[in-house]
Amino acid sequence: MNSKSPEQSLTTMNELVLPNDTNPLNNLMGGRLLHWMDIAAAISAQKHCNRVVVTASVDNVSFQHPIKLGDVVTLTAKVTRAFHTSVEVRLVVWAENIPSGEKIKSNEAYYTFVALDEQGKKVEVPAVNPETEKERELFDGALLRRQLRLILGGKMSTDEATELKALFSAAKQ
Amino acid sequence: MNSKSPEQSLTTMNELVLPNDTNPLNNLMGGRLLHWMDIAAAISAQKHCNRVVVTASVDNVSFQHPIKLGDVVTLTAKVTRAFHTSVEVRLVVWAENIPSGEKIKSNEAYYTFVALDEQGKKVEVPAVNPETEKERELFDGALLRRQLRLILGGKMSTDEATELKALFSAAKQ
Amino acid sequence: MNSKSPEQSLTTMNELVLPNDTNPLNNLMGGRLLHWMDIAAAISAQKHCNRVVVTASVDNVSFQHPIKLGDVVTLTAKVTRAFHTSVEVRLVVWAENIPSGEKIKSNEAYYTFVALDEQGKKVEVPAVNPETEKERELFDGALLRRQLRLILGGKMSTDEATELKALFSAAKQ
Amino acid sequence: MNSKSPEQSLTTMNELVLPNDTNPLNNLMGGRLLHWMDIAAAISAQKHCNRVVVTASVDNVSFQHPIKLGDVVTLTAKVTRAFHTSVEVRLVVWAENIPSGEKIKSNEAYYTFVALDEQGKKVEVPAVNPETEKERELFDGALLRRQLRLILGGKMSTDEATELKALFSAAKQ
Amino acid sequence: MNSKSPEQSLTTMNELVLPNDTNPLNNLMGGRLLHWMDIAAAISAQKHCNRVVVTASVDNVSFQHPIKLGDVVTLTAKVTRAFHTSVEVRLVVWAENIPSGEKIKSNEAYYTFVALDEQGKKVEVPAVNPETEKERELFDGALLRRQLRLILGGKMSTDEATELKALFSAAKQ
Amino acid sequence: MNSKSPEQSLTTMNELVLPNDTNPLNNLMGGRLLHWMDIAAAISAQKHCNRVVVTASVDNVSFQHPIKLGDVVTLTAKVTRAFHTSVEVRLVVWAENIPSGEKIKSNEAYYTFVALDEQGKKVEVPAVNPETEKERELFDGALLRRQLRLILGGKMSTDEATELKALFSAAKQ
Repeated sequence: MNSKSPEQSLTTMNELVLPNDTNPLNNLMGGRLLHWMDIAAAISAQKHCNRVVVTASVDNVSFQHPIKLGDVVTLTAKVTRAFHTSVEVRLVVWAENIPSGEKIKSNEAYYTFVALDEQGKKVEVPAVNPETEKERELFDGALLRRQLRLILGGKMSTDEATELKALFSAAKQ
Repeated sequence: MNSKSPEQSLTTMNELVLPNDTNPLNNLMGGRLLHWMDIAAAISAQKHCNRVVVTASVDNVSFQHPIKLGDVVTLTAKVTRAFHTSVEVRLVVWAENIPSGEKIKSNEAYYTFVALDEQGKKVEVPAVNPETEKERELFDGALLRRQLRLILGGKMSTDEATELKALFSAAKQ
Repeated sequence: MNSKSPEQSLTTMNELVLPNDTNPLNNLMGGRLLHWMDIAAAISAQKHCNRVVVTASVDNVSFQHPIKLGDVVTLTAKVTRAFHTSVEVRLVVWAENIPSGEKIKSNEAYYTFVALDEQGKKVEVPAVNPETEKERELFDGALLRRQLRLILGGKMSTDEATELKALFSAAKQ
Repeated sequence: MNSKSPEQSLTTMNELVLPNDTNPLNNLMGGRLLHWMDIAAAISAQKHCNRVVVTASVDNVSFQHPIKLGDVVTLTAKVTRAFHTSVEVRLVVWAENIPSGEKIKSNEAYYTFVALDEQGKKVEVPAVNPETEKERELFDGALLRRQLRLILGGKMSTDEATELKALFSAAKQ
Repeated sequence: MNSKSPEQSLTTMNELVLPNDTNPLNNLMGGRLLHWMDIAAAISAQKHCNRVVVTASVDNVSFQHPIKLGDVVTLTAKVTRAFHTSVEVRLVVWAENIPSGEKIKSNEAYYTFVALDEQGKKVEVPAVNPETEKERELFDGALLRRQLRLILGGKMSTDEATELKALFSAAKQ
Repeated sequence: MNSKSPEQSLTTMNELVLPNDTNPLNNLMGGRLLHWMDIAAAISAQKHCNRVVVTASVDNVSFQHPIKLGDVVTLTAKVTRAFHTSVEVRLVVWAENIPSGEKIKSNEAYYTFVALDEQGKKVEVPAVNPETEKERELFDGALLRRQLRLILGGKMSTDEATELKALFSAAKQ
């Protein structure tokens, strides 16, 4: 199984914000965006793994700029790193106002997926081979984000999280 | 503006997993569940605030048990604490298999919402008055989760996060 | 097969009225509500029967108060009585206006469902064991509603409907 | 305001039963059909009234034949009678199996609608002028169905329902 | 396999234009209408063929009159001619404004479908037997439209398109 | 108003084929694809025009390869040429099978859109400035496609269509 570059899993999705996607103030609802992000990220993970994938987790996502009815939402997704049977996908979301042409970055987020075979058993996935400076940085950061996920999911003690501890110790002095 | 108990914002939602909610292995897709969770949590936040609310963030969510086509998903949402113009809502998700009657806890998650007036300006929200032991524990933990959110959102340095630092220092010895 | 209490089948559903659910006057369309009621009632019937169920009938439903865009609709469903292979479910629908917090009862309705096995054959269902005064009243009334359903469905003559006849005879004097 | 014939409000709707419309046994869910019926009937009522209409009630509907995934559902709707500011619409539903070409009558039902002006106030509607034998029969029966609706909705006592009482008295002897 | 008349495949569909079907100017989006047209035409083709059908092509469609939110859209579809394993279906679309009762013809279009057996193999379909003057005209024109489709799809050279060439030659003098 | 390059309107959309998008043979329905194509093309046209746009026409589209449930559909859209108040958009559609990674070109199509101001009046749009060989070829071909559209829409006689006539005359010798 050959490794793949992040570029090979690049996925772009454009969505138009329709009335049913909005709240009474005509802002895109967060849940709809989380749903679109999951689909874009799953397509990206499937391109990398050539397997059916299921969402394993979504990291903390914050929504800072309201996206309005009629805006065009652009989502890009790219695999950052593989961990045996799972992959981390990084999403960047942009919102574009059509009359003004103004485009603002709305969100960044990380979703992880597990690859499954036809019987629903976990299967090994190709490694990720980062090629650019930015891709290497995201590849390295993936370890730290994984520790945080395991702690927050109750599967690792803060004691075992060597990288995270170093971060807070540094902060402490 | 009077404070309210968490019980007053309790919201229950039941959903049936339909074909379009599932992937080719007949498992509920993560994005659809995140969307349902957002709606249930928003309804809960609106009951507390009596205002239109918009999603400000969703904390780390992990998906550990596949939910199947035909399962009944039960979501409960309850406000844990208010922070001036925002509230934290805790969600618990259960999945029930109909023929067996077996019901498993699928997820726990925290969403935060900001309350807005008719012009879309942030407005103050009622305080939360926890009544049970569990509610008080969630009320206290909300501070810690808020620090983590601010750090992850790049709005607080690890140095300022007093509670989080204490946690890792304790772990260190 | 043990009997169950109505409480064991209690199902609560909350829905947010979105633009596509409304007519040009921004009122929730009756058909959408009937659809939500069917899902809530089916979930309740499935909890009681631990079987796939299919809708057998819906009794007369009237819509007296308009429900508006942005309102929160709360549906509760509970099995009232079982008839060999079918159950009657009672629904109560509330609509809540968020800014005012005002909550009005919108509808009451009865749906009946038939339980099926994997081959689509009708199967026996557990009996209902009413526990409160109100539950016993609904249990008793179920017989009368069943006669009316059979007459309206052309499966019973008015002559055979002993309870209904008594009702009209009493009215006659 | 001139009266209209039932024929002028005739509305036909065809729907294809898709996966999301069905339960795990691949049968069309009752709630989806009730939703389609409401839309077909509302279009028919709007053709008669030339007004926005809202659903006032749906009479008892029973579902006797399962409709399968892939079937073509044909709904016809026609106004039977007008009552000052409301109309009664009769629906007939057929299900057609494509490979066999077999077509069975699935349901008959009555929906009533109230006509509203732009401010949401009730407005008078044109009278119905039945032309065929069948249309006259439905026009006459509408009175009886209306009494039953009023009784079931708690707006008329069984004592006042002259036509219904006559029916049961006749049955009594 | 007996031939059928176009009347036997007549399919009528009524749709209400809802908020999510419209753009920010409250006009029905073209893609939604193309989707409805495909469903209406597929039902018509299935009635003729008694087979599952798949869309093979849609001819040039132009949208000249905006259809508004709240309008009733009526689509009629009828098979014009069969070509061994495929059929051409003609669609006519009307839009009706409810308050004014004004009804305008919005579109005409031709879709073609291929009939498939259970294994997804193409199968022969019944011939079409036109009965009225208009049906015969559409039956004859189908040949010309088919040549144009084959040329536009790159499957026929302009040289082979005898009927089309005659048309342009006539135009030339 | 400055001209723009086709690259500036490039729009990519990825969609996952879900159960409700398919027919009983698990093939993507043509109408759903036409709907996705319309949205992708409209986003592209809006990026070029910075205006709300409405679909004016879709050219002949043929569907040659079945797209299956679970496939990833990739649509790219790019403006080819502007005509005073309208633009032509070229779409290319690819379908990717996840397990095999095989990707086939499914369709090419041309949609045209008219740009509107806030009152729904047609407005002038920026010119297109083709930069690559391929873009210039599409820019030139747009004239021919426009003539064909006008003829098929009954707005130009075959006699006036100089370019089209030349094509068929050449074929004639």
